[in-house]
Amino acid sequence: MTDQPDAVHRLVAELVDKKLTVSVAESLTGGLIMAALTSVAGVSRVFRGGVVAYATDTKHSLLGVDANLLETSGAVDPDVAEQMAIGVREKFDASFGLSSTGVAGPDDQDGKSPGLVFVAVSAPFGCWHRELLLEGDRSAVRTRAGIAALELLADVLARL
Amino acid sequence: MTDQPDAVHRLVAELVDKKLTVSVAESLTGGLIMAALTSVAGVSRVFRGGVVAYATDTKHSLLGVDANLLETSGAVDPDVAEQMAIGVREKFDASFGLSSTGVAGPDDQDGKSPGLVFVAVSAPFGCWHRELLLEGDRSAVRTRAGIAALELLADVLARL
Repeated sequence: MTDQPDAVHRLVAELVDKKLTVSVAESLTGGLIMAALTSVAGVSRVFRGGVVAYATDTKHSLLGVDANLLETSGAVDPDVAEQMAIGVREKFDASFGLSSTGVAGPDDQDGKSPGLVFVAVSAPFGCWHRELLLEGDRSAVRTRAGIAALELLADVLARL
Repeated sequence: MTDQPDAVHRLVAELVDKKLTVSVAESLTGGLIMAALTSVAGVSRVFRGGVVAYATDTKHSLLGVDANLLETSGAVDPDVAEQMAIGVREKFDASFGLSSTGVAGPDDQDGKSPGLVFVAVSAPFGCWHRELLLEGDRSAVRTRAGIAALELLADVLARL
């Protein structure tokens, strides 16, 4: 993610400009998205915090993702991504919730292959997700998933 | 933190060996510690998740840090670090809670100067912290704080 500092700075500057805030719920990215955001000095004006919900059950207990959905679909699912984004937005009372869930690899998870990732953004006026099929090793998949999450937020912001 | 992959791998391997788990509560490191841990394949055996409690009030609302302590001492304080570690350990039902709080810079916070950092480890049998005075810019302070937190956990593990 450190190869994208300009994009992260632009995103933070736009949130500051528009007086909007973001909170983040990460699974496979495991803190990378929040580490990228907090690399920017002054980010505390727009970022209050977030959750790394790595174990599947913590997506329910901390973020309110539907337990039946996790049971039937597993953690790597578009509705799980959206519910994580909604949950963290509400928990931190932020304008936006941003989330990631997917398979970093090298092993499959819940019958899904490494590289399958869902990122989502929740706002008071809607929720969006993107499905990604990312190439590369564990490190590449995690980094690209984090960049894709931040890009999705930037795209939603651009529509405002 | 990516310049310390061997140390992180050793730490995860030792937790796996000893069947112990860790959860993390980060402030100034903003996700760097969890991103380093989750860079290791198979870390889900020992890491369930954590919280980035960036805004001061989230240290109370999410981690149970004493609100009066935050009011009187600010967020950059050894007792705050220890209470963050205790809170996240309990929240995730982990063997250890690991935390960081400090001033990344470039500006002062709560009357404290950039580079002042507290890291802490909570276990069922005790709690420890270290006070650090770190040199360098925002990026260096955050990276060194993350490394110091992981080193403190490794030192506590070595005593077991």
